[in-house]
Amino acid sequence: MEKLMNKYSERREELLGFENKFKLDYSEQDNIKFHPDYSFAVEFVDRVRCYEWYNLWFKAQHTEVGAPFLDTKNIIAKTKLFELIKKMPKGGLLHAHTDASVPLGDVFKIAHKYGAFIQIKSTHPLTQHNIHFGLAKISFRPANQDKLPSIDASVMLTESYETGTWCNYNQLAQLAQHPDNNNIIPFIEKQMLITAEESYITHNTMGKIWSKFGSCFGVLSGLIAFEPIWEEYIKRLVLRCVEDGVGYVETRLLLINELSYDVNCNLRLTRRDSILIFLRGVESAKDVLREEGRLDKFYGINIIYCTLRFVSEDELWNAMLTCLDIYKEFPTLIKGFDLVGHEESPSGHTLNDYLETLLRFQQKQIEEFGDIKIPYVFHAGETLHDGSIVDDNLYDALLLGTRRIGHGYSLYKHPTLMQMCKEKGVCVESCPISNEVLRLTGGIGNHPITCLINHGVPVTLSSDDPAIFQNAILSYDFYMLINHSNKTNLGTLKVLARNSIEYSLMDEEDKSRVKGKWEQDWEEYVRWLRRQGEEWK
Amino acid sequence: MEKLMNKYSERREELLGFENKFKLDYSEQDNIKFHPDYSFAVEFVDRVRCYEWYNLWFKAQHTEVGAPFLDTKNIIAKTKLFELIKKMPKGGLLHAHTDASVPLGDVFKIAHKYGAFIQIKSTHPLTQHNIHFGLAKISFRPANQDKLPSIDASVMLTESYETGTWCNYNQLAQLAQHPDNNNIIPFIEKQMLITAEESYITHNTMGKIWSKFGSCFGVLSGLIAFEPIWEEYIKRLVLRCVEDGVGYVETRLLLINELSYDVNCNLRLTRRDSILIFLRGVESAKDVLREEGRLDKFYGINIIYCTLRFVSEDELWNAMLTCLDIYKEFPTLIKGFDLVGHEESPSGHTLNDYLETLLRFQQKQIEEFGDIKIPYVFHAGETLHDGSIVDDNLYDALLLGTRRIGHGYSLYKHPTLMQMCKEKGVCVESCPISNEVLRLTGGIGNHPITCLINHGVPVTLSSDDPAIFQNAILSYDFYMLINHSNKTNLGTLKVLARNSIEYSLMDEEDKSRVKGKWEQDWEEYVRWLRRQGEEWK
Repeated sequence: MEKLMNKYSERREELLGFENKFKLDYSEQDNIKFHPDYSFAVEFVDRVRCYEWYNLWFKAQHTEVGAPFLDTKNIIAKTKLFELIKKMPKGGLLHAHTDASVPLGDVFKIAHKYGAFIQIKSTHPLTQHNIHFGLAKISFRPANQDKLPSIDASVMLTESYETGTWCNYNQLAQLAQHPDNNNIIPFIEKQMLITAEESYITHNTMGKIWSKFGSCFGVLSGLIAFEPIWEEYIKRLVLRCVEDGVGYVETRLLLINELSYDVNCNLRLTRRDSILIFLRGVESAKDVLREEGRLDKFYGINIIYCTLRFVSEDELWNAMLTCLDIYKEFPTLIKGFDLVGHEESPSGHTLNDYLETLLRFQQKQIEEFGDIKIPYVFHAGETLHDGSIVDDNLYDALLLGTRRIGHGYSLYKHPTLMQMCKEKGVCVESCPISNEVLRLTGGIGNHPITCLINHGVPVTLSSDDPAIFQNAILSYDFYMLINHSNKTNLGTLKVLARNSIEYSLMDEEDKSRVKGKWEQDWEEYVRWLRRQGEEWK
Repeated sequence: MEKLMNKYSERREELLGFENKFKLDYSEQDNIKFHPDYSFAVEFVDRVRCYEWYNLWFKAQHTEVGAPFLDTKNIIAKTKLFELIKKMPKGGLLHAHTDASVPLGDVFKIAHKYGAFIQIKSTHPLTQHNIHFGLAKISFRPANQDKLPSIDASVMLTESYETGTWCNYNQLAQLAQHPDNNNIIPFIEKQMLITAEESYITHNTMGKIWSKFGSCFGVLSGLIAFEPIWEEYIKRLVLRCVEDGVGYVETRLLLINELSYDVNCNLRLTRRDSILIFLRGVESAKDVLREEGRLDKFYGINIIYCTLRFVSEDELWNAMLTCLDIYKEFPTLIKGFDLVGHEESPSGHTLNDYLETLLRFQQKQIEEFGDIKIPYVFHAGETLHDGSIVDDNLYDALLLGTRRIGHGYSLYKHPTLMQMCKEKGVCVESCPISNEVLRLTGGIGNHPITCLINHGVPVTLSSDDPAIFQNAILSYDFYMLINHSNKTNLGTLKVLARNSIEYSLMDEEDKSRVKGKWEQDWEEYVRWLRRQGEEWK
């Protein structure tokens, strides 16, 4: 029997070892053994995770490891493991929409600063009754003194408010400071984010949750498509990324309207102007970082230019021409082109619908530059369906040479496409918390990312729309994965972070410079972990 | 541009075609083309599905395709597609636990018949208040006249009921007919099933939902471990299967207690006795079927003998010895051995924990029979975790030569094990509705079954514990899959049905006989579909 048991153990070891070779982080796991500090760090992080599994999660009555993000965020934020993950140099944020990346707290702070130039209207009076029953929908717009309404914002709080009338936001914000009205700002804020109750209970279909999701952008856009706010918004974006251990960003920028508001609240800023202000915002952030002596933690920010998947083929072509013009002026800034919006919306288009224009854009670039300078970086397969036209977007994304796949949620159902991603080096921008809040999955345990990692498909982690999902820039996504999967350790996270640089769209020179910086930061992090580990019980 | 478009279309076609070759039903899809009636049937079912997608699901405000089973069951039950699926000859039910397979309505009917011999007790008086707040937990037991309590069951409905006192169930059931008490039977019934609210809202961790799930078995066992009910229960099981288009069953039988109650309510039936009564039940069912002229729709029923994964190694060995004894007396009836119970329970054991005994059981069979006559048919990987000891059960199940894998929920995360299943012909008993009610997945769209099918891993569909999940024998599981996945058509379902015979554990002779019968039934079904299709708008 002993012989039989030994033989069995050998076979078991062999099988596990063989399967591990497929894993995305296989060679990295080997690496760990040869670096004592790194080994120590990996073991320390594992130790903290195990400790919290047993002493926090397993003992908890009302939650568990892998429970939904919005239900557990407040617990996670207080854990030691989260503290360690937060500090980690995460490389790049490759999939996040510019207009939903900065925490709402920051957005409100900026908005209050320019409150005198912002107007608010509501579909219903902001009475306590309407607030309680969630009956009022609000909108913002910038407006200069001339356009200021004569009515006082205090009217908004009474039944005599004529719905749809614009009021000064400053006045309202001041009224909201009164204890009787202290639920007004939270009520407005809720219109820009998705709550646990909405995601998990009330908005229980794709249609309902995406309708709420879309309306958040509507409210937000009334604030940020305004020169001074836009500039500070971008500045905060950079600072928040650096704070969360993210040094590089490829932000998906959708300038939905042809014109935005300038500093005088005139609707006259072109998309090119918005890019210039974007760059000013980046420079302001760099000034701050320089002053604080941590400019080296910021590696850079670039843009993936986007339009909506709801536009006509002509509108798409126009967006592409605008993108080309902007690219010509800012050739190092524009790194790719994408289509955004709910892939499954009945009014949306598949990649195949747009095929002719998508091919023509590539042709035009080849004619002009002899090469494709603005590659596609498509959203594809953000769906639960199997063999639907949205699932099929994965075929078209890959055939059209997408450099990465945004979400790729349904990719794990495609053996051939998984193989293609491995062979061609197409990386999946996986967004576990986004997919959870938008109801594709009940939690990280059911998210395809572990399947992709175990099959060796290139993956990075992203947060998509962190502001709306009450998410941080990237730390929670990293936390969810490592806390859930036993096969994920610090080495796995390092591979995901490294992928975010390797599969970025920087040119080779920048990439190698950034990689060097990140590696330095990583070494520093490992040393910090050692000190932490030595202090920890 | 046209040339470019054409070339693109060709490449696209090629890629889709190439990937389709991996799919489990690839050759079956080819088959369809050559059989006009079959083609018609496939197209008709697709037509009905599409019609209902657009005219029912997409227009619905509060639900959608792929929404949770318990929320949509009542809608599904009224659809034409469900009517067509219900009639389908589904082959075999390979993964269902005997004591949770018969609809509760049937169980109550049998219980009421023998109500004079059944006692009930409760942890709290069955007052309207306690019923309303769900405070009372009830239990059943068989009891003969001598043991009947002197107290009247009507006391149970008052505060003066001394909790834990046994009362006659017949009396209670009669009182429950009074309009004032018409919530008593539903209240008792809810203790044997999982409600939508429990699964999706209140019991929101694995611990909570499995605790409820386990308690359902406790209530049920008080009724069915009693000779007359057990016999009728098995009879109904066969009849319900046939009614749902299931001709063959490999039921997982757990005779948890050493003794059950005989017809005189004496605790003296051995496990062997229970098997004899089981066979009497099967014969009664056959009598009914014979009378109704549809005995040919029943292909047979066999047993996978089970014990709990919570027992000690000694207890496991004893269960194996009992199983061997029973096998020797009923060699064609006992088809395999399995361990049941919550894989993730902290008090449960992994396969590796039991390794020595599991190997010894195989050794003993080889010594006695020169071969393994009672193969393992293990539950494994019924988990959301990745690389946990429960996930690792998959390695041990396969290394121990499991003939099929029960659930195999986490198998899709294992490239090597998927390949092993394909090469060795190990079939996954996939239970999508069970996995949903027990909170592994939010719906069929996130269930790994489509991934496994697309990767060509052998799969069948099962319902696990249909009584507790408010599920039918098999129709809803088939419906969920075909209604959700565009890549699934009648041909795919046929493959799943055929697999349930091919991967069954019948000997070759029986298997080929049953296969012949099922093929005949299938032909008949296809002809029926043609008639249905010709009548349908």
